[in-house]
Amino acid sequence: MSRAYVHGYDRRANERLHDQAASLVELLHWDTSFPAGSRVLEAGCGVGAQTVTLARNSPDALITSIDLSEASLAQATRDTEAAGLTNVQFLQADIFHLPYDAAAFDHVFVCFVLEHLARPIDALEALKTVLKPGGTITVIEGDHGSTYFYPDSDAAHEAIRCQVELQRAAGGNAMIGREVYPLLTAAGFNDVRVSPRMVYVDSSKPALVEGFTKKTFTAMIEGVREAALEAGIVDPGVFDRGIRDLYATAASNGVFCYTFFKGVACRRG
Amino acid sequence: MSRAYVHGYDRRANERLHDQAASLVELLHWDTSFPAGSRVLEAGCGVGAQTVTLARNSPDALITSIDLSEASLAQATRDTEAAGLTNVQFLQADIFHLPYDAAAFDHVFVCFVLEHLARPIDALEALKTVLKPGGTITVIEGDHGSTYFYPDSDAAHEAIRCQVELQRAAGGNAMIGREVYPLLTAAGFNDVRVSPRMVYVDSSKPALVEGFTKKTFTAMIEGVREAALEAGIVDPGVFDRGIRDLYATAASNGVFCYTFFKGVACRRG
Repeated sequence: MSRAYVHGYDRRANERLHDQAASLVELLHWDTSFPAGSRVLEAGCGVGAQTVTLARNSPDALITSIDLSEASLAQATRDTEAAGLTNVQFLQADIFHLPYDAAAFDHVFVCFVLEHLARPIDALEALKTVLKPGGTITVIEGDHGSTYFYPDSDAAHEAIRCQVELQRAAGGNAMIGREVYPLLTAAGFNDVRVSPRMVYVDSSKPALVEGFTKKTFTAMIEGVREAALEAGIVDPGVFDRGIRDLYATAASNGVFCYTFFKGVACRRG
Repeated sequence: MSRAYVHGYDRRANERLHDQAASLVELLHWDTSFPAGSRVLEAGCGVGAQTVTLARNSPDALITSIDLSEASLAQATRDTEAAGLTNVQFLQADIFHLPYDAAAFDHVFVCFVLEHLARPIDALEALKTVLKPGGTITVIEGDHGSTYFYPDSDAAHEAIRCQVELQRAAGGNAMIGREVYPLLTAAGFNDVRVSPRMVYVDSSKPALVEGFTKKTFTAMIEGVREAALEAGIVDPGVFDRGIRDLYATAASNGVFCYTFFKGVACRRG
């Protein structure tokens, strides 16, 4: 293939990436930290899966983590307290009806949230109103359409399609990762920089084979079996063969690929 | 998603990758250079698209570049001479009938070649015989199944499928990139390390939009139009819509992703 310039690659975000990434958490989060005293809104914290990392990486920032679910917030509160973190406040709140003044935050952080929303641009615009001019937003999303593997398998792609279709039926988008750049741009953010975070797994990486291919991705797809059969969107034999084939990509000659996308953008005006 | 260790990521190959990659050529080749005096076989050099880079990156290595096609070798010879390179010898030869003694080379380099071979493992085994114990093999391949984009388009995937099917009909495999690890392993190489080289393109990277999305990838797919129609594997309207949709991924809100795979392995015994 011919020569093409790679200008604009997010160099700072990438140069130390693999050097520092000892875990998937680090692959996604190593380059996010906020200064002492800065006010950070984590929108859609859920059970706090990212909150502990966020708070640890920015020990002197003041983090406010919101979610719609009281039950999730209770779990997140327990986990951050158990981790000894004291720089996080939790609040039950809706991204579309934020109980904050304009420009109340220096930074906004949104991870694995837009994939569940029917109107992600509206959500980003709502978050922009509480962000001060000059502040940044950080968005991280996966993309199930970035999944490919060896041995290849039509049944495995069918099983993954079930997850994508069910999420779409619920108003979400499991292939939103590739859209982080256009979404941030459409919402009026500036200086948008997106860097892909590809997880490549072969059997020279046994911890990733177990922790990512099997226990994260395949387990997640396996988890939609009943819903997919109830929805009538797949033949049970095909689905089960798909799951078996996904586990086969974790065998000694198997390969599994998945990519997350991380975008950072600025509110100029 | 849960925590998973990224042990075994090819850190050395990645840590400076994006920092150094000013072009696609650098993305693929920056971390390949061979010591002074080492004997390097480039198998399947074609018209020398990689030979100039290879010879420049290893100015004191002795490079032997072989290909089946006399016409391609003539072009490669002209281009390396025009580039002022004097450390390359060209020879018309067949990977499956190599005119060299066992262990004649310190290193072997194979780029965009296995994708065209019906028996890639046999080719790697043949190359292993002319590699000295302790020597390395470097393999670089693309993977058309790694292609995804925004806006998504079934027609665009159909057009890409034509290229994949035509290459398969010719005995090749346009989705071989993901197989670099299992192929090198199956051929009996050791210490196999594969690193993905993902090209992520959005409109903040105009040189890549032009040089990669449009002039490299989409132009290549567009180039199989007549063959695909002759083979009767696609409706012309679908193909043309697919090409139009691929160009749409180069618009201001578009995103295009493609991944190459680079493997380095050792001949132990």
